[in-house]
Amino acid sequence: MSFDGYVAGPSQSVETPLGIGGEDLHQWVFPLRAWREMHGLPGGEVNESTRVVEESLAGIAATIMGRNMFGGHPGPWNAKQPWNGWWGANPPFHHPVFVLTHHPRPPLELEGGTTFTFVTDGIEPALKRARSAAGGKDVALAGGAHAAQQYLAAGLVDEMEISVVPKLLGGGERLFEGIGDDLKGLELVRTVATPQVTHFKFTRR
Amino acid sequence: MSFDGYVAGPSQSVETPLGIGGEDLHQWVFPLRAWREMHGLPGGEVNESTRVVEESLAGIAATIMGRNMFGGHPGPWNAKQPWNGWWGANPPFHHPVFVLTHHPRPPLELEGGTTFTFVTDGIEPALKRARSAAGGKDVALAGGAHAAQQYLAAGLVDEMEISVVPKLLGGGERLFEGIGDDLKGLELVRTVATPQVTHFKFTRR
Repeated sequence: MSFDGYVAGPSQSVETPLGIGGEDLHQWVFPLRAWREMHGLPGGEVNESTRVVEESLAGIAATIMGRNMFGGHPGPWNAKQPWNGWWGANPPFHHPVFVLTHHPRPPLELEGGTTFTFVTDGIEPALKRARSAAGGKDVALAGGAHAAQQYLAAGLVDEMEISVVPKLLGGGERLFEGIGDDLKGLELVRTVATPQVTHFKFTRR
Repeated sequence: MSFDGYVAGPSQSVETPLGIGGEDLHQWVFPLRAWREMHGLPGGEVNESTRVVEESLAGIAATIMGRNMFGGHPGPWNAKQPWNGWWGANPPFHHPVFVLTHHPRPPLELEGGTTFTFVTDGIEPALKRARSAAGGKDVALAGGAHAAQQYLAAGLVDEMEISVVPKLLGGGERLFEGIGDDLKGLELVRTVATPQVTHFKFTRR
């Protein structure tokens, strides 16, 4: 999240999936060994952010994301040129991913254990299916802002890891918008500060 | 600042100067010895936030604030019942304070060395007068959001101390709104994290 509260910059598009400046929010993660490993790359740094990334990934066996994060284009799926996500043939999830959408589509099985399942009946059924797929392990809510807002407002988030970068984006998608002042029992339990990013972890006590 | 970026809550009024929930942004400071001392009160805590408060106060010899922070009511001053600020007969500044306003008014001298001077010709003349009054020492920009935005956008801020509290206000005055993505050369130089508040210091390198 930027210092002015955006998790994606303005003018998101197929060419600029995170919006203008949105990539800057993630610069801290790319050099990390934990991130490179997940993407099949050798080497990388180990620093204070490493344990945050490792903590976030540990025990995750299914992911939920919004249609805008899965990306491509708004509206019905294009049957002739299907959009298969931003992540190529072997996405870094390696487990079932549930995509919230209004437009039905058969599941999309890619390499490395990632299957995208498109859920059209809302956030609670998506969570139920993700939980079932995770088989007792944890479910990650990857984003974007609108998906996160819906789960937060419904009180369905048990843990929240927010990484704040000391930059402004000046526009785009704000994470905390339209959900009022209620964190639904989530409380700050840990802060890790580095020059590039500050990681805030909230959990329900 | 709240986690959703507000420096004052919604519905600011004479009864609720910081807006609904706005007081929560300052709970971390009230128990501190540094804060109590400034307000003529005995005792208090010394913790990690102490040096941040001491750093912020050190070397300050004049303050600038917006009319809304000085408070009372919008529009021309009421000559019969003049509003003299929120801080009583002996305000905690103990140095000259310059209030940005569209409505002229003679200076207001209170006890303890605080004189409020009302500046109607804009942010640069106010800064010039405050610098002159500070005689080589530093000028603090106390707030509120609109005053801070104007000085930030003009590139007139040399240092910025932002204390982020892990709560949502859901509405009110956002600090970073309408100023785009340009921090005008300000960079994060120090973070102090506590369970109650995280202090971010930016300076121009």
